[in-house]
Amino acid sequence: MDISIRAHQAPASPIRRLIPFAEEAAKKGKKIYYLNIGQPDIPTPSVYFEYAEAYKPKVVAYTHSAGLLELREAFTRYYERFGVRVSSSEIIVTNGGSEAVLFAMAVVADPGDEILVLEPFYANYAGFAAQLGIKLVPVRTYPEDGYAVPEKRAFIEKIGPRTKAIIFSNPCNPTGAVYDEKQLETIADVALEKDLCIISDEVYREFTFDGYKALSMMTFDKVINRTIVVDSISKRYSACGARIGTFLTKNREFYQASLKFAQARLCPSMTSQYATIGLLGLDDNYTEQIKREYEQRRDAVYEELKKIDGAVFKKPHGAFYVSVKLPIDNAETFVKFMLSEFEVDGKTTMVAPLDGFYATPNAGLNEIRIAYVLDQDKLRDAVRILALGLKAYSEKR
Amino acid sequence: MDISIRAHQAPASPIRRLIPFAEEAAKKGKKIYYLNIGQPDIPTPSVYFEYAEAYKPKVVAYTHSAGLLELREAFTRYYERFGVRVSSSEIIVTNGGSEAVLFAMAVVADPGDEILVLEPFYANYAGFAAQLGIKLVPVRTYPEDGYAVPEKRAFIEKIGPRTKAIIFSNPCNPTGAVYDEKQLETIADVALEKDLCIISDEVYREFTFDGYKALSMMTFDKVINRTIVVDSISKRYSACGARIGTFLTKNREFYQASLKFAQARLCPSMTSQYATIGLLGLDDNYTEQIKREYEQRRDAVYEELKKIDGAVFKKPHGAFYVSVKLPIDNAETFVKFMLSEFEVDGKTTMVAPLDGFYATPNAGLNEIRIAYVLDQDKLRDAVRILALGLKAYSEKR
Repeated sequence: MDISIRAHQAPASPIRRLIPFAEEAAKKGKKIYYLNIGQPDIPTPSVYFEYAEAYKPKVVAYTHSAGLLELREAFTRYYERFGVRVSSSEIIVTNGGSEAVLFAMAVVADPGDEILVLEPFYANYAGFAAQLGIKLVPVRTYPEDGYAVPEKRAFIEKIGPRTKAIIFSNPCNPTGAVYDEKQLETIADVALEKDLCIISDEVYREFTFDGYKALSMMTFDKVINRTIVVDSISKRYSACGARIGTFLTKNREFYQASLKFAQARLCPSMTSQYATIGLLGLDDNYTEQIKREYEQRRDAVYEELKKIDGAVFKKPHGAFYVSVKLPIDNAETFVKFMLSEFEVDGKTTMVAPLDGFYATPNAGLNEIRIAYVLDQDKLRDAVRILALGLKAYSEKR
Repeated sequence: MDISIRAHQAPASPIRRLIPFAEEAAKKGKKIYYLNIGQPDIPTPSVYFEYAEAYKPKVVAYTHSAGLLELREAFTRYYERFGVRVSSSEIIVTNGGSEAVLFAMAVVADPGDEILVLEPFYANYAGFAAQLGIKLVPVRTYPEDGYAVPEKRAFIEKIGPRTKAIIFSNPCNPTGAVYDEKQLETIADVALEKDLCIISDEVYREFTFDGYKALSMMTFDKVINRTIVVDSISKRYSACGARIGTFLTKNREFYQASLKFAQARLCPSMTSQYATIGLLGLDDNYTEQIKREYEQRRDAVYEELKKIDGAVFKKPHGAFYVSVKLPIDNAETFVKFMLSEFEVDGKTTMVAPLDGFYATPNAGLNEIRIAYVLDQDKLRDAVRILALGLKAYSEKR
């Protein structure tokens, strides 16, 4: 009796695996700036609780497996604001964006099949792929050009007979890149030419700066029937713990297949679904305010990072992450050093090593991801401490 | 571009696939007794809402991937009442029992592997197996002897080199059977002899009648290290829409593997988790009261079913289902007849055809499942209408 190969292959979370070192440091009284995880500090709008409390049914019963109709209709109106026209019968409400990714992969790929992924990528894609026995095949992007989508050729050379889809997030977690129309056209062209499905993760849709816009893949007519959008309310409403996401597609076969998986697990949390109806009623003012806050944070991190000799990165235009190549040998060793051996006035900074966001062996070993989820002053202090730690780390080596 | 084979193979829910016929009947003004789905009508205890409302954090954040520690500790105390000693680090809180089943299957079996299942079985097992590329191999039980666990031989002859586990529910959905110690010993012996994992679905633990008890597989010492218990609060607290379940195991490899899958999907709904802490504080009085209610309902259904000539079944001792073999050719045709062509004083009864609960082709074609989730008077009326419908259906044939 042994555990399955897929369980062996499932990666431990690269974000969570260094937590024991942080706990140890915290125990010793060190103050840690946690820039390693995408958990926003922005308060969840109170309408979340108002809606959760307003609906007290006699029985907390199963909802429709695709989610409450009222909630799907609220999503329909939300998406219209971004030029995405989907009806309530083209939406499945999921247990977070996570489950939407799981369903999307399961709908298009069988065990042994391959899915292309723009690399570095949201690390949990690897967990879902392992669970489903699917192989992720990386198409690499690089810090030198701001982790932009590469030319068509880079995709084509990775496509084989078992390639079924391309997955990516835009704006990108972990890089903060926002793909422009031309870059998205490249992806669309590859999908058309090679008959692939597109799984577009648009969780950070609202978080774009400097006039950049994250176009939904659903607005590209030529691939409308081969696109699945996966989405989540977690980041935009600072409601990660609600676990409400969506699976969107205009392809009826994809939809019906995903609905079968959705029926097997019955439905998402009723209480979270009602709370989300409240959140979706918030207007653009709410979003603009959050966006401005993140833009200022981005600026703060960017300015401080620019002062670091040898750091390679471009100004990120979206999400709330920036990935950076550092003049070090190994980011994980460096993060452990920051937690275990370094401090400035009793404080240190924790970031995520980027290798866990790559499928290519040994890639990203000297890159890190910073999540700018704290206020500006803390962020500036945190990056300054990071810079000092870098110096100390280099001198020690 | 096509959908995956696993998506093709995933069954449509046997409970939900006849809903269009019910909707059509309801539209015509027919009153329908819904005995087809295990959605209890018992009110959810108010403490669910009290706890959901009491905890209003500034940020609805991710919880621990294994669930809130406070909730896991509450589960620890709950399980102690049944002689099951598990620590909080042996529990993973899941999105309903559904996700616990998905994790358990993924942890022990790879694509192409086989899992034995006592048949008829909870239909959604087939959905999760399809999603994971696992083959369910049925070990049949029969209405004539109350769907009891068969002799060891019946298991052994189904076991091959790719068999990894045995899954079953006790008390059993859909049959209402409660397996006694000897029957569970049979399963334990097979697992030991053939080095298999046991996945024990104990969702209906509290619902046992006539002095019967549903022993947890976790109380069988000789298989303690090869057992995964999957569980859910849905039925016992009439809180199906909360989507809170558990994955329990003392096997550290199983636990760590499942935790990796849990980390990929981050966490279950925070609000539902807090609400569940409240529910777990309810004492045995609550359970006893619910149990008595279901026992009386069981009696009502049993008495009325006994009046049907040619119906084959034994008195069920647990859960809130009874499966019955009827003197008909095809249960699905009969259910459609009841909805579309039959009524008594404007009323009819909907039950679930049992073939969707079998993996063996053409098995269960003349069996149905009744969920006794309505009050006694309605149940008696519903079964009487079913009996009259049977007569009319037979005469028509």
